Amino acid sequence: MVTVSRRQKANAVRALSMDAVQQAASGHPGAPMGLADLAEVLWCDHLKHNPKNPHWCDRDRFVLSNGHASMLLYSLLHLSGYELSVDDLKQFRQLHSNTPGHPEYGDTPGVETTTGPLGQGLANAVGMALAEKTLAAQFNRPGHRIVDHFTYALVGDGCLMEGISHEACSLAGTLQLGKLIVLYDDNGISIDGEVGDWFSDHTPQRFTAYNWHVIPDIDGHDPAAVGRALQAAKAETAKPSLLCCRTIIGFGSPNKAGTAASHGAPLGEQEVALARAQLDWQHPPFLIPEAIRAAWSAVATGAAAEQRWTQQFAAYQQTHPHLAAEFTRRLGRQLPAAWQNEARNIIAATNAAAQSVASRKASQNALQQFGPLLPELFGGSADLAESNLTLWSQSRAVSQTPRGNYIHFGVREFAMAAMVNGIALHRGFKPYGATFLMFSEYARNALRMAALMKIPSIFVFTHDSIGLGEDGPTHQPVEQLASLRLTPRMSVWRPCDAVETAVAWRAACESVAQPFCLVLSRQALPHQPRDSTQLEAIEKGGYVLHECKGAPQAILLATGSEVGLAMQAVQHARLRRRQIRVVSMPSLDRFAAQPRAYRESVLPSAVRARVAVEAGVTAPWREYVGLDGLVVGVDTFGESAPGAEVFKAFHITVEHVVDCVNRVL
Amino acid sequence: MVTVSRRQKANAVRALSMDAVQQAASGHPGAPMGLADLAEVLWCDHLKHNPKNPHWCDRDRFVLSNGHASMLLYSLLHLSGYELSVDDLKQFRQLHSNTPGHPEYGDTPGVETTTGPLGQGLANAVGMALAEKTLAAQFNRPGHRIVDHFTYALVGDGCLMEGISHEACSLAGTLQLGKLIVLYDDNGISIDGEVGDWFSDHTPQRFTAYNWHVIPDIDGHDPAAVGRALQAAKAETAKPSLLCCRTIIGFGSPNKAGTAASHGAPLGEQEVALARAQLDWQHPPFLIPEAIRAAWSAVATGAAAEQRWTQQFAAYQQTHPHLAAEFTRRLGRQLPAAWQNEARNIIAATNAAAQSVASRKASQNALQQFGPLLPELFGGSADLAESNLTLWSQSRAVSQTPRGNYIHFGVREFAMAAMVNGIALHRGFKPYGATFLMFSEYARNALRMAALMKIPSIFVFTHDSIGLGEDGPTHQPVEQLASLRLTPRMSVWRPCDAVETAVAWRAACESVAQPFCLVLSRQALPHQPRDSTQLEAIEKGGYVLHECKGAPQAILLATGSEVGLAMQAVQHARLRRRQIRVVSMPSLDRFAAQPRAYRESVLPSAVRARVAVEAGVTAPWREYVGLDGLVVGVDTFGESAPGAEVFKAFHITVEHVVDCVNRVL
Repeated sequence: MVTVSRRQKANAVRALSMDAVQQAASGHPGAPMGLADLAEVLWCDHLKHNPKNPHWCDRDRFVLSNGHASMLLYSLLHLSGYELSVDDLKQFRQLHSNTPGHPEYGDTPGVETTTGPLGQGLANAVGMALAEKTLAAQFNRPGHRIVDHFTYALVGDGCLMEGISHEACSLAGTLQLGKLIVLYDDNGISIDGEVGDWFSDHTPQRFTAYNWHVIPDIDGHDPAAVGRALQAAKAETAKPSLLCCRTIIGFGSPNKAGTAASHGAPLGEQEVALARAQLDWQHPPFLIPEAIRAAWSAVATGAAAEQRWTQQFAAYQQTHPHLAAEFTRRLGRQLPAAWQNEARNIIAATNAAAQSVASRKASQNALQQFGPLLPELFGGSADLAESNLTLWSQSRAVSQTPRGNYIHFGVREFAMAAMVNGIALHRGFKPYGATFLMFSEYARNALRMAALMKIPSIFVFTHDSIGLGEDGPTHQPVEQLASLRLTPRMSVWRPCDAVETAVAWRAACESVAQPFCLVLSRQALPHQPRDSTQLEAIEKGGYVLHECKGAPQAILLATGSEVGLAMQAVQHARLRRRQIRVVSMPSLDRFAAQPRAYRESVLPSAVRARVAVEAGVTAPWREYVGLDGLVVGVDTFGESAPGAEVFKAFHITVEHVVDCVNRVL
Repeated sequence: MVTVSRRQKANAVRALSMDAVQQAASGHPGAPMGLADLAEVLWCDHLKHNPKNPHWCDRDRFVLSNGHASMLLYSLLHLSGYELSVDDLKQFRQLHSNTPGHPEYGDTPGVETTTGPLGQGLANAVGMALAEKTLAAQFNRPGHRIVDHFTYALVGDGCLMEGISHEACSLAGTLQLGKLIVLYDDNGISIDGEVGDWFSDHTPQRFTAYNWHVIPDIDGHDPAAVGRALQAAKAETAKPSLLCCRTIIGFGSPNKAGTAASHGAPLGEQEVALARAQLDWQHPPFLIPEAIRAAWSAVATGAAAEQRWTQQFAAYQQTHPHLAAEFTRRLGRQLPAAWQNEARNIIAATNAAAQSVASRKASQNALQQFGPLLPELFGGSADLAESNLTLWSQSRAVSQTPRGNYIHFGVREFAMAAMVNGIALHRGFKPYGATFLMFSEYARNALRMAALMKIPSIFVFTHDSIGLGEDGPTHQPVEQLASLRLTPRMSVWRPCDAVETAVAWRAACESVAQPFCLVLSRQALPHQPRDSTQLEAIEKGGYVLHECKGAPQAILLATGSEVGLAMQAVQHARLRRRQIRVVSMPSLDRFAAQPRAYRESVLPSAVRARVAVEAGVTAPWREYVGLDGLVVGVDTFGESAPGAEVFKAFHITVEHVVDCVNRVL
């Protein structure tokens, strides 16, 4: 039998990475080549995974936060035995391949999250580790550890420079996520060159300050040192671990190793040949000798590992049948059997109660009512619990009660959103995070990542307009709602009363492949009466809330706090004799997804006299009012004053709406 | 003469703060009451400022990063002698007052920056300190220290939890901003309650890891201790200083001090009365006894301080007349006398050169040509210098050359943007920051803050569409351009070739009260020939680039890389005989600001057959094409593949544009 050395195994990763980048004429060879040695130790000696079932729920999670090192991950997946062929590697960065430039969740078996936007993978990993810890606390029982895995993340200098690394790691330390193990690729190089001139942190000290277990000064090219560090990290279960691994970017490339030149471009044919020589890797591109392939394969060990877990779970099922069924339900993102009926009843009861409350309060009521049905609800607020109204009677903070369901995220909007994504990716929970709508901007790219990954994260954004009043323009959203609607696949809801709020929450809870933004008012909103057809129609995203007699002469469109205004406008003396329809549009994306016939029934193309009202920028409504209609909105920044006065100052008033309708008629 | 104690002076701040919040029935009394003692020491013994001239260029800068403590700042300004009356304080949080809920730059004399969105004030302060250090290196001469001030920032737990605090402070340490002094209000309380459950950082250790001078464990209610710490901080000039001050939120309120209850709501009449008793402050609301007022006044000392500086500057002027004139020009945001002519020549030369280059490359060319005229240009990139092309031949990094003009920001988009704002606020520079357009999302709220503050920050965003190719959907902007356009007052430019790029840069350089986003391609763009009228018209934001014979039957609108496509489409066999106008729209906001007659001349309302083409979401174009037109765009996420293939995959092709024009005709 041929003995295969660790270095040879690592060189297989190096060769595949530089060859694939060369073939694509585009990509990042440096990081994979620098990280090959430590990744080999992690993947071959430590990672618990089954290449033939990337969905096994108790697998260790591996997150490549420095996503540009995608060829490292693809090489590892390929060599370990995942469904990723040499031909796939040859298609690196080509249209519709499963080896895109950055790892994309859903495109490639074994890719746990989409990475590339730096720092977010790390925060996803913190979310995953929190999900594991909480799920374990909820489901494990004496003698039964059915939830018991590590979360590993690989991060670069870029990830650690990003602010989100601070937010996520500070909270990970506070929450004592002992099974989170982060490997820091300390190669001293970023795109601009040697990092000393712009990144001089003493990183071990920084993470010690976060209450982490820090192992400094590991030679990332010494497998024994890496192995010892990983052992120590796994042994420390009260604190997350940071392994600071010194590596050489582009290791093996005689002329480009240790420099930014190896970071983001192919090495070049000649340098690849020189690297082959230096690494003593004499095989042609994409060819991996059978012995090396065999040494890498995790197929047998992976199957055995999952098999052991399956037996454990069978025993658990025997002893705790209800818990086991619930575990299976939650991991499968199934709703409880009673859900449809109960949810319908809750909405009917909300309709009957006819309460005029702020939609943030209606959201809390929805949590209070849906919550007992959905123990998987797991979320919190970025230090605004009492404002966002995310706490309900059964909320228990995980910081106090490990099996709890509430997270005090602290003032960390970006990490919150990325952690919510990580929790959603882990499965077992229906996660949500809340802040003021304005501070959705702090989390902007994580919201996008949820949509890109098609994961059902829920984001609760309160204080949704100038109506929040005195806090003024820094806190008054004007363009944020419109901005959220721009992101493909994001479902954005701005309900007009408690009933629409409950329907929005139901839709969010039922989502399996789409994130939701729930945009809610600070101030009270009047209840709108509806018949049963209208009640059913809310979930279509737009529907006729007030119908006129005969064909409409004009249509008034509104969302959220402006629906009440529109309803008042049509009752106004100057409009009472006109035939004006009011359309409530809680979700423009949901409405746009309806069949054309339904949309036409709500907004007949022949009716061009249209006015939209929304306390935000007018841009989103141009699509609905066209060149002949008008939009009542706010295209400048807000003002600090009591909410009602601010509305008046910006002419978001019944009088002005009436004027505008008269102008288009 | 009555002796006034420090505590009495501090209590004046406490009383004004709780009274104003009470009167407004809204606001944050806790932080001002907790910070009054330390602010008194800072403002009375250390801060160099002249209340009668808040624009004196060599004043110390004071930034209240925890902006919700606005009543602290308003009290300090009022008591020191700024133009802020008791009546103004009584109008706290009322419409159009100069005492809005959060400090707003431009509304109130002495407010150095708008704060409220946590952490950004701190990053603004880092920018200001860098501006001071660099300006000093550029203008001070032996015996002449005309630039020599400190930058103080007050930050709360919230600021330090935010990721941007990591980015900004890590860079401040690396850049050795020794005259930056940050006072940390360590009161252990945030909105959700005692911070221990969500914020357990060892903050002194964290900042030591950033290479800061840290003074831990200061009793923030002991003026002597605060004074000693400030002395030590000022003495340490090689490192920024962090003063960790333990304070009691709501100090003086017998029942709410030390709790979140004092944070964000009025104390209540009764508690205010109890606090008055506990503080031994028996004066009626808003009344400050003359002796206390006199003890606070900085009018005389401030005038004297500025007077000393004026004399110094006169001596400097004598010895270094050219430098002094340049200093005055730059601080006044005046362009050089030769600017208009030179800039016109540069644009004419760019037009004559007729180069087909990527607009990011055209941007570098513009920097290379405008740069020598504008030594105030001061900027850099978030670790993407070679991709954003922000380096030009005279770039010198301040990390190497203190009088330099280039900043390696590291991978820190949010701090970069907020620092650029801080540099703009400081004056003396024309600052810019660059990253990929996608990562504008990491900096989103700082871009908004620039627009809200009406400051001329320049943001350079390259890799502006799916055209960037292989890096894939995480890096391919789709909705980001549209999102930037939503922010009121932000000027967003997406030039179609080198000429439009030069015009965009000129407009950005000439701006004094508006931030600019320059959105640039990775890939080469064809030069578009123009006559002199068209050349002049570029600055209007939209103009007829291709005119048809007679009245247009249809109009094609496009920006950036799609302008070339539109120009090809009208030459296409299937359209050649049609009368089709092509409108290039490099800046929608600039076009919208033109007189109606001009807009009508470019886009006659009668012509409803309109097609817009832009490689991004279609939303922004609905306003221009109406219900009858079409938009060729990208309303889903991108794909990883070579750029040209991605364009084809999303039907951003000449053929498809031709089809669409035929459909609307």
